[in-house]
Amino acid sequence: MDEFNLIDAFFARHQSRRRDVVIGIGDDGAVVQPAAEHELVIATDTMVEGVHFDSTTPPRALGHKIAAVNISDLAAMGAEPSWLTLALTLPRVDRDWLEEFSAGLFEIADYYHCALVGGDTTRGPLTLTVTAQGQLPKGKAISRGKAKPGDWIYVSGDLGDAGLGLAVSQQRVEVASRHLKRVYDKLHYPMPRVALGQALRGIASACIDVSDGLLADLGQILKQSNCAAQVQIDKLPLSLALTETLEAEDALRYALTSGDDYELCFTLPEQHRGQLETRIAHTAIKPVCIGQVVGGDKGKIRLRDGADEWQFAAAVQPGYNHFNDND
Amino acid sequence: MDEFNLIDAFFARHQSRRRDVVIGIGDDGAVVQPAAEHELVIATDTMVEGVHFDSTTPPRALGHKIAAVNISDLAAMGAEPSWLTLALTLPRVDRDWLEEFSAGLFEIADYYHCALVGGDTTRGPLTLTVTAQGQLPKGKAISRGKAKPGDWIYVSGDLGDAGLGLAVSQQRVEVASRHLKRVYDKLHYPMPRVALGQALRGIASACIDVSDGLLADLGQILKQSNCAAQVQIDKLPLSLALTETLEAEDALRYALTSGDDYELCFTLPEQHRGQLETRIAHTAIKPVCIGQVVGGDKGKIRLRDGADEWQFAAAVQPGYNHFNDND
Repeated sequence: MDEFNLIDAFFARHQSRRRDVVIGIGDDGAVVQPAAEHELVIATDTMVEGVHFDSTTPPRALGHKIAAVNISDLAAMGAEPSWLTLALTLPRVDRDWLEEFSAGLFEIADYYHCALVGGDTTRGPLTLTVTAQGQLPKGKAISRGKAKPGDWIYVSGDLGDAGLGLAVSQQRVEVASRHLKRVYDKLHYPMPRVALGQALRGIASACIDVSDGLLADLGQILKQSNCAAQVQIDKLPLSLALTETLEAEDALRYALTSGDDYELCFTLPEQHRGQLETRIAHTAIKPVCIGQVVGGDKGKIRLRDGADEWQFAAAVQPGYNHFNDND
Repeated sequence: MDEFNLIDAFFARHQSRRRDVVIGIGDDGAVVQPAAEHELVIATDTMVEGVHFDSTTPPRALGHKIAAVNISDLAAMGAEPSWLTLALTLPRVDRDWLEEFSAGLFEIADYYHCALVGGDTTRGPLTLTVTAQGQLPKGKAISRGKAKPGDWIYVSGDLGDAGLGLAVSQQRVEVASRHLKRVYDKLHYPMPRVALGQALRGIASACIDVSDGLLADLGQILKQSNCAAQVQIDKLPLSLALTETLEAEDALRYALTSGDDYELCFTLPEQHRGQLETRIAHTAIKPVCIGQVVGGDKGKIRLRDGADEWQFAAAVQPGYNHFNDND
């Protein structure tokens, strides 16, 4: 057993309290007991140094975020997070880095009562992959493909702050010091909308998490649902951090095209609006209606400001993100 | 959507025929239906260029092997392989490479009736991670930790050939041309022992797949079971390729310490020997008894040749492997 195998033992010290974990870290595979009459949801996401983050990103944030982005995928399907596996490729063994990284990972895993049940640690360029498994009652998964013309379009919270945090971290934009913590927290410590995802079971017609930017991600729903949409830019939820930092058009550009917000974007048939209000009445969840699904060119999104058509002065690239840029 | 997202569509073209896949590639997560009264087994393994393979390895072999090593972990637990996800980090998009890689992956996935249900493709240094999910009847998982003194130790087939293949590919050893295909096939296209793993449910006391070398992997069983072992070197199954290529002591060194064979090593209580014979009677599976679990120093393996103690002339490093070497 080499130094890298020993790291698995390092992660295994943190024992989960989930009673459905029959065998955890330390065998050929983990053994878990799925709930009866439930379906399993599986999501996997990778983050690579120099592509999705850089060497200045705190390791605690990396541990949080690689778990969060996967749990967010489960949330977008309406699932309850259950089990995670971690494939960790490291250039060297650094105890301090591992302490911080694992603290970030376990904080969010514990918050959602989700167990790390296995993994593989290898030597190589810094690469993080988590595979997350969630569960939901049979037939209740929310796909991207069932939005219909007339359905209302919602987002679960402020858009653009993570993109602003990235711009600040890369010294492309300056924010007032009172906004600094918020924009960095949104970039580094996103909180997936798990409770909302579960509240949407059986009522939302489609759902996606906003990882590539609203236009790109809503575009996925529309393409897979064979529909178009109108989005009211005057309804987009924007934080004070965003509106006090950027010119109005730039703020909208961040809200519509920067990624990494991990809010949910979902579509809701008219007849389920009351049901949504009821389900979230006594929670802190405040989704905002930003437009409507319409017929027409598959995937096309028309922007409106009040009753008027609205266009960016300069062309924008949906889903543009410095770290995803392949040029 | 960038070029790397398009690759997901490339993999999605290959549709599985499994009826328990409710939603496959192309949504936030895959949705699958676990079998009633079954447990889920989850395994994950990563291969990194320059660490686990080099640039001369055929991409078809990489696709095969990253699936095979994960399916082998499921086999070692006694599980039936069901669903795979693939996290693929690529330095560039190369159609020919992807065609070959995916052909290798789907060949083995289809062979075991296992569906690729999701993935993530990112840009970066070539890194392959598969997470495999299998299923087995509740309570039937075979762990590493329940071997007892008196249990017999078996391996499922020839040891050392993959290590020989690696040595040949690195031009450290020459083999006769009649052995070349065999040693390369064992290195690049290992076939996990899925049928045997399932035959061992309820009768084997412990099981592991031989990925790091027999001494290292059997050592894991013994440590987790708090036992020691005697292994008869005169009983080790060795191929003609190995014995005709290497001096006797070198052949044993490969068989005991080189990794990547993906045979199963398992322990069987005396009273289940007949049951094993019965279960495999009409199959091509021919496991070989190579020794016995004994009491004594936890993890200690004593080698014997017939009735005599046996030792290597030179000290060996258990689990030594050029590509896993961290020095």
